[in-house]
Amino acid sequence: MNHSMIRYILGAVLCFESIFLCLPMLIGFVCGEKSAFAFLICAAACLILGGCMVIRKPKKHDFYATEGFVSVSVSWIAMSLFGALPFWISREIPRFEDAMFEAISGFTTTGASILNNVEALSRCCLFWRSFTHWIGGMGVLVFVLAVFPLRGGNVMFLMKAESPGPSVEKLVPRVKNTAMILYGVYTFLTMLEVVLLLIAGMSPFDAVNLSLATAGTGGFGILNSSAGSYASSQQVIITVFMILFGVNFNIYYLILVKRIKDIWHSEELKAYLGIILASGLLIAYNIRGIFPNPLEALKHSFFQVASIITTTGFSTADFNEWPAFSCAILVLLMFCGACAGSTGGGMKVSRLIIMVKTAVKEIFTIKHPHGVKTIKIDGRVVEHETIRSVNTFVVIYALLFAGSVLLISLDNFDYTTNFTAVAATINNIGPGLNMVGPAGNFSQFSAFSKVVLMFDMLAGRLELLPMIVLFSPLVWSKHR
Amino acid sequence: MNHSMIRYILGAVLCFESIFLCLPMLIGFVCGEKSAFAFLICAAACLILGGCMVIRKPKKHDFYATEGFVSVSVSWIAMSLFGALPFWISREIPRFEDAMFEAISGFTTTGASILNNVEALSRCCLFWRSFTHWIGGMGVLVFVLAVFPLRGGNVMFLMKAESPGPSVEKLVPRVKNTAMILYGVYTFLTMLEVVLLLIAGMSPFDAVNLSLATAGTGGFGILNSSAGSYASSQQVIITVFMILFGVNFNIYYLILVKRIKDIWHSEELKAYLGIILASGLLIAYNIRGIFPNPLEALKHSFFQVASIITTTGFSTADFNEWPAFSCAILVLLMFCGACAGSTGGGMKVSRLIIMVKTAVKEIFTIKHPHGVKTIKIDGRVVEHETIRSVNTFVVIYALLFAGSVLLISLDNFDYTTNFTAVAATINNIGPGLNMVGPAGNFSQFSAFSKVVLMFDMLAGRLELLPMIVLFSPLVWSKHR
Repeated sequence: MNHSMIRYILGAVLCFESIFLCLPMLIGFVCGEKSAFAFLICAAACLILGGCMVIRKPKKHDFYATEGFVSVSVSWIAMSLFGALPFWISREIPRFEDAMFEAISGFTTTGASILNNVEALSRCCLFWRSFTHWIGGMGVLVFVLAVFPLRGGNVMFLMKAESPGPSVEKLVPRVKNTAMILYGVYTFLTMLEVVLLLIAGMSPFDAVNLSLATAGTGGFGILNSSAGSYASSQQVIITVFMILFGVNFNIYYLILVKRIKDIWHSEELKAYLGIILASGLLIAYNIRGIFPNPLEALKHSFFQVASIITTTGFSTADFNEWPAFSCAILVLLMFCGACAGSTGGGMKVSRLIIMVKTAVKEIFTIKHPHGVKTIKIDGRVVEHETIRSVNTFVVIYALLFAGSVLLISLDNFDYTTNFTAVAATINNIGPGLNMVGPAGNFSQFSAFSKVVLMFDMLAGRLELLPMIVLFSPLVWSKHR
Repeated sequence: MNHSMIRYILGAVLCFESIFLCLPMLIGFVCGEKSAFAFLICAAACLILGGCMVIRKPKKHDFYATEGFVSVSVSWIAMSLFGALPFWISREIPRFEDAMFEAISGFTTTGASILNNVEALSRCCLFWRSFTHWIGGMGVLVFVLAVFPLRGGNVMFLMKAESPGPSVEKLVPRVKNTAMILYGVYTFLTMLEVVLLLIAGMSPFDAVNLSLATAGTGGFGILNSSAGSYASSQQVIITVFMILFGVNFNIYYLILVKRIKDIWHSEELKAYLGIILASGLLIAYNIRGIFPNPLEALKHSFFQVASIITTTGFSTADFNEWPAFSCAILVLLMFCGACAGSTGGGMKVSRLIIMVKTAVKEIFTIKHPHGVKTIKIDGRVVEHETIRSVNTFVVIYALLFAGSVLLISLDNFDYTTNFTAVAATINNIGPGLNMVGPAGNFSQFSAFSKVVLMFDMLAGRLELLPMIVLFSPLVWSKHR
């Protein structure tokens, strides 16, 4: 294991976090909030620690999958630690495990909160919560790759370890340029949302916070009603942008280079939009009795579908009170997730497509035992290696899921709460059903359960392997 | 598709069912119950129909995987239909869909009931319910193979389609002899249980019924309290036999041929017993406060663990009232299931072992990307084909599970009820949690949901593919 390279990357991440922490600090000072000092302290600590770590260049540039996974998981844990400190130092979140939960929930774009009253927070803390979504959405390592000189080694492993989806492609030959294009599109779309929300009459602070949280598909709101008290036009804009941020960013690259035709060959995009349309209509029909008119039902239905499938987690209504059929669709969407290469979490639509195609192929093979039938997506054969990795992903996912439900059930809450709490955290969504429904939160869990759920959020965001590798004796053994 | 061969096999199955139906008929006449006439009518109808189908020998003996799957699924549906008729004709179960649910639940050894009051049934109906478990447990096609002259073709495909587990082995070169050995062991163990229960003071009728239901890992009781009102010694005997019938029958063959040493090389057996021991102790500790003394807690805990992991479904206590941690363990055991090649349902311990080993291998591969690491069980390399089939099984299982939960949630019951109702039927267990818990039953579901759950029971018992093949246009297309 190349320790010096991991140290160097971790240092870079901390330096950037120190810069990120300056933004809420400025907001705090402008608003005259004393919590701003907490951000100042943390930014300084981050800069000193990070600076010490990057001052010495790494000895070797060897960089393989293990190094990629370990760098990413260590960076995310360190980042969350320093992200949690301002909440704790400022005493706005008095317990350390709660502050850590909130920070991890932010960076992993989960949006699950332990706060009973969000509106009591200072503006700088509220902004930091939303901003962590934005940083975590596209990935901080991708950011590092875009702007930091990381020479030699196979740094693509970093991006592979942090980016979501069964396979990661470079848009352009150089990793640095790929990362820059991704962040460019990301920033542009976020700003576009801010502008549209301002035009729709939202206050600037709300518009910026909601846009950051939508962009990262996070879900922290700045009001206790989440997105419920905004105007309908504003909710519609948020719905559209949630869907847009759940699309594979490669699609936007295709638009940039004017290969519009290629977009419609994307099976994942078609499946993603098809699932949203079908679920939205089914739920709207199912809940039509609850709302005064069909348009209202459609608005709430599509908002919630977009919010859950993209794993954002905003809510305009307490869907825990909706009929069981609507709840069941939403729970299924929790597992489905958004497109690969988007800022959304979950298992990803492309994995689902591969799973369905594998099943169809198996049935086909019964009749034609000797017929070779490969699995194709977008007209290209899916490599055997990718199919295998999807299968393993599902297996590890199921084992981690089962183990987590078992551990948090020690708190003796009902089964639906436990099941959906794990589903909502491992898929980085936020709200579940019952006690962790849109009207509830995660504050009632014990510290132990919170640690389990924090692990699930990180494992879910980093697509399982990095976190598991970090705690696996198999990988840490000296023998190579 | 070789239709004449399928017709011939179906005929044989019906002829045997007619013989099976004579047993409850005799009991009915002896007890002077008028429901006995219903069994007489059905036995006669079965014999006539089956006789017509076997009178002409099949034209061709071609027999492949498709024929195997279709024969098995068609036979099981026909068998359930004729098994349901006596309940319905005798008016003991007035609705046809309920009678069908009860019969399918019987043959698939699920043990989920739609009856509010089991004790109101006549003795012949009670016996038939238990007897369907016994017939379905080892498999009726295996029975046909054991005693019926089925020449030519590759009849091993029949056994493969009906027997549980990722891979089926012949114990001895001839399929007929393998089937005979299996049924021999099965009958011997069942009789042993009857004798032991009689010695422990149980009445003959109860002893026979409970033994048949235990042998098939079914779970239909003949009292409303399931197994709750029997003496402790009797409950312990049932616990031991549930565990015994969840063991791979190859193990008993090894005992028969005195290869005792080989038994301890079986990783599946060790894992199976290990899981039972660990779960039993954890639950006993968790529920210690509910029962007057630790011994009582241990008895109930191990009874319930054995009942759920072997997918029998008897209960001595309402575990729905136990702490959430115990419930979570039981729900996990529902998915685990018993050993491959036993009469139990679920995913099977051997699939779980393959899944865990695949996950471990994946983590190992990160550090050693070029190291080839095969997966071994019992010291032998698991074929790539088997691993692939396990992965596909998990995928199809997950898709069917999700779709079923969605469909039955139209009845608007709570999520835990829906989730565990599907888990209890697809894994052939019987009781779930909440409304379908040990104190509840499946009578409140709509006819549509009952059909969905019936499909799940059959799909679960036949390990997914046969039922899906039957309804798959891919397989029925003329093009070959």
